[in-house]
Amino acid sequence: MFKETFQRYLTMVEQSLAQLPWDKDSLNESMYYSLIGGGKRIRPVLALASAEAVGGHLQDILPAALSLELIHTYSLIHDDLPAMDNDDYRRGRLSNHKVFGEAQAILAGDALLTYAFELLATPGLGRPERQLRVIREVAVAAGKAGMVGGQVADVAGEGKTLNLDEIEKIHKAKTGALLTVSARLGGILAGGTEPQVEALTEYAQALGLAFQIKDDILDVVGDSETIGKPVGSDLRQGKSTYPSLLGLEGAERQMHTQIQKAQSALKPFGTGATFLNELAYYIEQRQH
Amino acid sequence: MFKETFQRYLTMVEQSLAQLPWDKDSLNESMYYSLIGGGKRIRPVLALASAEAVGGHLQDILPAALSLELIHTYSLIHDDLPAMDNDDYRRGRLSNHKVFGEAQAILAGDALLTYAFELLATPGLGRPERQLRVIREVAVAAGKAGMVGGQVADVAGEGKTLNLDEIEKIHKAKTGALLTVSARLGGILAGGTEPQVEALTEYAQALGLAFQIKDDILDVVGDSETIGKPVGSDLRQGKSTYPSLLGLEGAERQMHTQIQKAQSALKPFGTGATFLNELAYYIEQRQH
Repeated sequence: MFKETFQRYLTMVEQSLAQLPWDKDSLNESMYYSLIGGGKRIRPVLALASAEAVGGHLQDILPAALSLELIHTYSLIHDDLPAMDNDDYRRGRLSNHKVFGEAQAILAGDALLTYAFELLATPGLGRPERQLRVIREVAVAAGKAGMVGGQVADVAGEGKTLNLDEIEKIHKAKTGALLTVSARLGGILAGGTEPQVEALTEYAQALGLAFQIKDDILDVVGDSETIGKPVGSDLRQGKSTYPSLLGLEGAERQMHTQIQKAQSALKPFGTGATFLNELAYYIEQRQH
Repeated sequence: MFKETFQRYLTMVEQSLAQLPWDKDSLNESMYYSLIGGGKRIRPVLALASAEAVGGHLQDILPAALSLELIHTYSLIHDDLPAMDNDDYRRGRLSNHKVFGEAQAILAGDALLTYAFELLATPGLGRPERQLRVIREVAVAAGKAGMVGGQVADVAGEGKTLNLDEIEKIHKAKTGALLTVSARLGGILAGGTEPQVEALTEYAQALGLAFQIKDDILDVVGDSETIGKPVGSDLRQGKSTYPSLLGLEGAERQMHTQIQKAQSALKPFGTGATFLNELAYYIEQRQH
């Protein structure tokens, strides 16, 4: 049942991304290249599942859910640039700047970020006041106090030994904020109550942390072909990670605690949140 | 009278930009560095003046007007990067990446763009439906079919001989779209009628083209200290420009035609658009 629901969300996301009005020029091509290059689509899936958990209709929030994947994709393109992480591969394919050149990769990222806000402002996604609230929240989560700020802190932290609090703070900003707002977006646009939106927030915050710990773990024990990028890059870049601070077992335990926290936040929804509950388990078990 | 009104708008913009909640970290510092580094503030001024032309209150649209300057500034930071125009100076000061490094300059641009949409979604800027429309229009103007698309075409056109139509198309996307949406933003948020918004659109389109022709002319005949960057860079980069295609006099004539077109679009406003009318003249006369 989990697999079928996941597949339903995934198909919806993949088809809708492909069907956006892509022009036939090199900029659109470069945006599309990275957007359609695989990926787990966790953010839009989280948004769709959260909307259904509060009883909403998926079609009403779909463009907003897609915007989250555009923002995630732009951040990957810019993170991979030579001036940043200098990664030649992403999801098992050449990274954007290796295919289209640095200038266009920067611009493809810029255009994806901008397009995300166009999608978020699509007419008729729920009540206008809610939609404006969501736009604000997404901008905050993706911006200087969220994702971009976290990336700056991450780059600044390379080669330094960080403690657990510092790592957690970076993760919360760099990946946690956008994951959290994904769940909130679904809940808010679909008309969830404030307690429901709060429960989704708590869930997504714990899930996001677990997701990041798992990323760190996979960078140590994962299979590079399954992950689609070389393993051990954190170690080579001198990054402090959960495994480097807690050991592998300690990191696994920490991740499990977060998964349990995420699942217990869903209790108010009862069976309405079965998928989200199983999604947490899926995150814990994922191999890439 | 024109000077006093311009100063009133400018003071409002400068003070409000400085008073945004800037945190004390290197990312905020780098965003602030480029945002407060001078500049003519044409876009927010255009928005404020357009709002007053339709009888609106400035305070109601101020955050939205500021967002235009954030978007403009982010585009300059990214354009200056080594992978793009590789400019070491901007507005007479070191460009962002020369001060903060390439990685952070990319991220400062990303954060400014994102923050722009947070400001656009500020609660209570006119009716929510209008606000959503403005967010959509700004995203379109700044995105792949507008500013970013124009920059891609501009980079692609370097070293090639373009004809007048091709140059105009690039300018319309690269600088015209954001200038046009600046006027529309003021008109729409302040509750202008559709014919009023259309008149502002016509005005701003012609003004934007005149602005760009003047930029091209100043790159040939300007004084590098007044402009704040080296002159002759278009020529060195092998760019086709209005002066290179029409000669200096032809370019001046073409600019003047656009200024007249801009001014005649304002007729329906009568004395309500005195400032916008004189702004066109100011654009024509500017030396930097």
